[in-house]
Amino acid sequence: MSSSTNSHSGDEKACTIAPGQVLEASQATTEQLLRHAVELARQGVRKRAGGPFGAVIVRKLPASEHSGKQFVEILASGHNCVLKTQDPTAHAEMVVLREAAQRLKRRNLSDCELYTSCFPCAMCYGAIWWAKIPRFWYASRSEDAAGAGFDDARIYECLRGTGHADLRGEHVTIAEHHEPFEEYLDALKHGLSELY
Amino acid sequence: MSSSTNSHSGDEKACTIAPGQVLEASQATTEQLLRHAVELARQGVRKRAGGPFGAVIVRKLPASEHSGKQFVEILASGHNCVLKTQDPTAHAEMVVLREAAQRLKRRNLSDCELYTSCFPCAMCYGAIWWAKIPRFWYASRSEDAAGAGFDDARIYECLRGTGHADLRGEHVTIAEHHEPFEEYLDALKHGLSELY
Repeated sequence: MSSSTNSHSGDEKACTIAPGQVLEASQATTEQLLRHAVELARQGVRKRAGGPFGAVIVRKLPASEHSGKQFVEILASGHNCVLKTQDPTAHAEMVVLREAAQRLKRRNLSDCELYTSCFPCAMCYGAIWWAKIPRFWYASRSEDAAGAGFDDARIYECLRGTGHADLRGEHVTIAEHHEPFEEYLDALKHGLSELY
Repeated sequence: MSSSTNSHSGDEKACTIAPGQVLEASQATTEQLLRHAVELARQGVRKRAGGPFGAVIVRKLPASEHSGKQFVEILASGHNCVLKTQDPTAHAEMVVLREAAQRLKRRNLSDCELYTSCFPCAMCYGAIWWAKIPRFWYASRSEDAAGAGFDDARIYECLRGTGHADLRGEHVTIAEHHEPFEEYLDALKHGLSELY
């Protein structure tokens, strides 16, 4: 399912970004990582893997005691793979988030940062949130994506309660609907520290 | 990664809902599927697999020519597995969406419907959207989840532009940011029908 890729097409800029690599954090590094995300997006289109979106996720390493310099380690990089995998959730951000969590063997990625070729859709924004990533960088804005026909804006409109709600949710109350929450709260009382 | 489960704990109601099963569509079936989603949510808590959320996804079968009756086939069912898998994206809805797409070998699930124990978070709402599912049913409301400490509401606030934006996105313009979109639009002009 994951789609880490570090292969290079002939005409692209020299790029050595690969999982495991350590880079010094700087404005130049931020731009380098965003350029790499954009290059991955291009590669995804060329491979017909999915939409024109790429992402890179890094882990912030503890600052060097001697120099005070900050370094980041590349955890995962990839592009949209919806077409290649026929998984409608395989957006670039999802692909790298899942791969990074697998690599670190933990769901909490609060020491990580994400670089994406374009502002994330609502699904990916939510996923970044749940992974507890505090900050992400993006190169293209939602409006740029909309200009290429990607209708993230309509999801945002639905979530904002503006415009027509294309995706309808029907509320049906059943007697036992609250039981899972009660069971969860009870587990919390009995020593469970966190469960989601 | 998927977590289809049809096992039963001792005290639950008799339940025969399993992938592959065909049910006649009716109000009673809707409630039955929601009760099953709720039961899966309880099982998820008991197994310490993840948060108290469950979901079922069905495929609508063509209406019978003779009787005009509508039937649905169970494609996948599961619960939140974030803790079990250490995948921060493994919410119940994501788990069943991914499993259903894998089962059908296609990303377009527009002939499917989803039943979830609770109104989906922004990530899952977006995923349901991208899978082109036209309608979903839910048992508990976001407010019910919030009462148990699940802070989906804060994501929605960020997406709505209200309240404090806990998750910050930083926009950095790099010269080539629009190239993937151009490449995509060019591919569309040269015969590619759809790419995401």
